[in-house]
Amino acid sequence: MKVVIVSIGDELLIGQVVNTNAAAMSQMLTASNFDVVRVVTISDKAEDIEECLRTSLQMADVVLITGGLGPTKDDITKHTLCRFFGAKLIEDAASLRNVEERFKVLGYEVTPVNRMQALVPDNCTVLLNKMGTAPGMWFDVDGKIVVSMPGVPDEMQYLMEQCVMPKLRSRLDNSEIVQTNVIFQGIGESFLSDLVEQWELALPKNIKVAYLPQAGMIKMRITATGTDRQAIERQLFAERDKLIAIAGQYVAGIDCQSMEECVAQKMLQHGTTLTSAESCTGGTIASRITRLPGASQYFKGGFVVYSNELKENILGVRHDTLETFGAVSEETVTQMAENARRRANADYAVATTGVAGPSGGTPQKPVGTVWIGVASAHKTVTRVLHLGNNRSRTVERTVNNVFMDLLKLVDEECGR
Amino acid sequence: MKVVIVSIGDELLIGQVVNTNAAAMSQMLTASNFDVVRVVTISDKAEDIEECLRTSLQMADVVLITGGLGPTKDDITKHTLCRFFGAKLIEDAASLRNVEERFKVLGYEVTPVNRMQALVPDNCTVLLNKMGTAPGMWFDVDGKIVVSMPGVPDEMQYLMEQCVMPKLRSRLDNSEIVQTNVIFQGIGESFLSDLVEQWELALPKNIKVAYLPQAGMIKMRITATGTDRQAIERQLFAERDKLIAIAGQYVAGIDCQSMEECVAQKMLQHGTTLTSAESCTGGTIASRITRLPGASQYFKGGFVVYSNELKENILGVRHDTLETFGAVSEETVTQMAENARRRANADYAVATTGVAGPSGGTPQKPVGTVWIGVASAHKTVTRVLHLGNNRSRTVERTVNNVFMDLLKLVDEECGR
Repeated sequence: MKVVIVSIGDELLIGQVVNTNAAAMSQMLTASNFDVVRVVTISDKAEDIEECLRTSLQMADVVLITGGLGPTKDDITKHTLCRFFGAKLIEDAASLRNVEERFKVLGYEVTPVNRMQALVPDNCTVLLNKMGTAPGMWFDVDGKIVVSMPGVPDEMQYLMEQCVMPKLRSRLDNSEIVQTNVIFQGIGESFLSDLVEQWELALPKNIKVAYLPQAGMIKMRITATGTDRQAIERQLFAERDKLIAIAGQYVAGIDCQSMEECVAQKMLQHGTTLTSAESCTGGTIASRITRLPGASQYFKGGFVVYSNELKENILGVRHDTLETFGAVSEETVTQMAENARRRANADYAVATTGVAGPSGGTPQKPVGTVWIGVASAHKTVTRVLHLGNNRSRTVERTVNNVFMDLLKLVDEECGR
Repeated sequence: MKVVIVSIGDELLIGQVVNTNAAAMSQMLTASNFDVVRVVTISDKAEDIEECLRTSLQMADVVLITGGLGPTKDDITKHTLCRFFGAKLIEDAASLRNVEERFKVLGYEVTPVNRMQALVPDNCTVLLNKMGTAPGMWFDVDGKIVVSMPGVPDEMQYLMEQCVMPKLRSRLDNSEIVQTNVIFQGIGESFLSDLVEQWELALPKNIKVAYLPQAGMIKMRITATGTDRQAIERQLFAERDKLIAIAGQYVAGIDCQSMEECVAQKMLQHGTTLTSAESCTGGTIASRITRLPGASQYFKGGFVVYSNELKENILGVRHDTLETFGAVSEETVTQMAENARRRANADYAVATTGVAGPSGGTPQKPVGTVWIGVASAHKTVTRVLHLGNNRSRTVERTVNNVFMDLLKLVDEECGR
């Protein structure tokens, strides 16, 4: 089935916001064998929305719209859809209850403007938005489907996952879809693709593979489609086992979305705890780990020892080590990891120290030189990375690399 | 002048790549007073490109195309543009020299396929691409402009900055543009817009305002256009002064891109230093501060005391405080801020402790309850926030709020 994604919002047209919604939706749709034929970003003007809806319905079976809802936008999308479909707005009881409950939690009064969020066209199926106040709206018209969702990423994501994708999938012939993903770290995309080429060529036709590379890691998504769910599950897992037999040394985790999820999985599996000692990554390790709900089960906290003064005073890195070897050295990262682990009373510690740039490089330690370390009660593993002169990319790659070394050490000590 | 951006590429339609090109181009265009009316992403099929070009030329004066060039794509865009304009491909000498020089540096032979990159439609002006091998192409047709560029971000960026934007700006009447922005925190968009309504209504016609809200802050961009650069600069700064006189209490900074840039500006202005003690924000304060190059000049480092154990052992929060008032309390956040400041030997400390959710809430302290604190040598300021049940938004808002409180305390103690 062909899909057009319509993103409404001036903030997109002026480039203030990057259209990550469209990419996230495309990924979900492609993974379920839908064919995204166009993505269109338009302003929140009624005539643009109408024109775009008309031409999109000519080229696709499904039109998914995000944005242009909410009281400050005067609910322009809702009014336009009403006019387009010849419908009228009615108050939806469940959506109103949802608005009221959400405002109660925040301690706010529900104003007449807020109450308008519960108005929906009378020809739509309401998709209850448990992440916000603007409901999703599903229209079945002349054999085609139009869905309107809020543009707030969390709300779109919730509605897509919980309501839209299940409903869309139920319209497909091969309605059963099973997916898995494998996170690889420490190997480039083209090398990985060479390594697993024979496996990929031999895959059955109903199994598809997508490479989704990010800074310092690759997510491989494997999708099986068919009519018998149990059969395609068996088939998919058998193929995944073959893949792991070939490229297992680069596998960070299975069915995770990120390296920190791989770490979470591993820590919870073994009941181990973690701390961090960061210099050049400046808190990004801790921030990425605590982004996941439930991180307090394995993460005790961490140290951001950006200055040498704090490396000494807070983490007890020896003054003569910093003098002799410098802050960016194997000796310093070793003491950072070992001392952090002891001070936080954790099973494992990860540590980073490097030159993120753009300045601070020397001929011996150019910008992008980073030492990483992982310590357990039994051993400390260190490694030097050379990551070039893009500050934010260096931080991301450092974090993904030190997470990989942590996973390997835990595997070694606790078993896979 | 109205602009449509056309992004060609299947990798965009399947969601493998986020369309950052379109956002970057939109920013450049908007900053120069061009009006981006639509962004369209299409596949690299000739019929899609032709149809999209036709409809885009109906709604805009300028169509900027990226992608679909390069030998692996069979130069589909080039062939399509030739057919569309009734042109034919000829070899461009300067582009061929560019290909040859680039390959020489890399030590490769120029193959016939590479040589084809120097072919261009005979009705275009060639834009020499010093970042790659595919030339940009500028078409002037019936008073409208069509430009085709490669989709590789660095190459697009180079061609936009060096060739396309200067040529486009030369077509404008008011070619001089001056911009400034003001960051507001602690006020919602609609309240701010009410507060400054009279100022906005009284603005001269050549000055435009855009509200760019993010989680817990608003960036207001003010743009003046005209022919005399010095005159519009004076005019712009006078209007900005009036704005600050009206809404100054909510102003976090001027000409910053983010709250952490406001903090950086203020710290550097007064030569003061900073540390952080984070529980619910889990390292995000430190991570955001160290994202900026040069953060080591004012940021000493920070403490991520996620567990109560670390709050006690690392930051010296008293056991009986945690027992009596709990980790999410004014008493705890006060000790976190004060003790962190002393232990890091910094002028200022910011601290956060709260229930980020989705679990961990109680009737007294529901999910989204956050205590923030700022400590100096002279005083400690605390505040409680109620931020709802979206984990990542709660973290972003907490960070922006505590940064604002820090800015206010520094203003109070050091002067603006």
